[in-house]
Amino acid sequence: MRAEFVNPFLASLLNVLKTMASMELAPQKPLLKKDEIARGDVSGLIGMVGPQTRGSMSITFDEGLALEIMQRMLGERPNGINDEVTDMVGEITNMVTGGAKRILSEKGYDFEMATPAVVSGRGHTITHKSEGAIIIMPFESEYGKAFIEISFDR
Amino acid sequence: MRAEFVNPFLASLLNVLKTMASMELAPQKPLLKKDEIARGDVSGLIGMVGPQTRGSMSITFDEGLALEIMQRMLGERPNGINDEVTDMVGEITNMVTGGAKRILSEKGYDFEMATPAVVSGRGHTITHKSEGAIIIMPFESEYGKAFIEISFDR
Repeated sequence: MRAEFVNPFLASLLNVLKTMASMELAPQKPLLKKDEIARGDVSGLIGMVGPQTRGSMSITFDEGLALEIMQRMLGERPNGINDEVTDMVGEITNMVTGGAKRILSEKGYDFEMATPAVVSGRGHTITHKSEGAIIIMPFESEYGKAFIEISFDR
Repeated sequence: MRAEFVNPFLASLLNVLKTMASMELAPQKPLLKKDEIARGDVSGLIGMVGPQTRGSMSITFDEGLALEIMQRMLGERPNGINDEVTDMVGEITNMVTGGAKRILSEKGYDFEMATPAVVSGRGHTITHKSEGAIIIMPFESEYGKAFIEISFDR
């Protein structure tokens, strides 16, 4: 798991939410996941496969933040996490991974993206099971927290 | 999403649990996921990327069933879903996907596997966001239910 994989995902999430939802998240210091646990209410998950590495990435949102992004992106605010919200989280997952893929490709790391899956469930946690370290990138906002977690085999 | 993708995953889960845990699950009729929702307490998720297709697969277990498999595979029964249980679910996810990959490769469908991630959280749901249909394969046992869900772009 290379440290240079961190910033492309971090920058890509900030860029996607600013562009699509005029939402500015405050990135916190990235951490190695050991005792640290990222809990949230809705998460997008995606697998990545390349010639040099393979891994997985998740983006986890508190419900309040996901609903606020929904309102800003689509002009509607559902009462809770429904199909439209999971569609939006799946799209954000695709866009963030696509953005990181372009940046990493310029650095000589190529991978293909699988299709995303979205998890709903209050206070769930995700554990990435690759051979490398897991990096957590926390983000804060007045509407709730978000976390990116990534892990690559090598 | 091709119907012939269903049986390799179904057969592979039955085989892995029988071989590794002497656990016989009763497979139910596979369904298209529309209003059907598979809830569970711990899930393994994995992405797949190939020249002809890409997709994602999840295996979701009720807690009671996951703990019983844990006891039969490793001889210990934790009080709840802990790191050992999520490791085991990640391994099962790898083994089931690896088994299906071998069968599908013989039929001319090749894909590479990403690394798995494991979701913990009581009663969570997973929605696969590919362009194809989502197939649910329910399994029953006296210890609780399990579900495989798969979806491929084409």
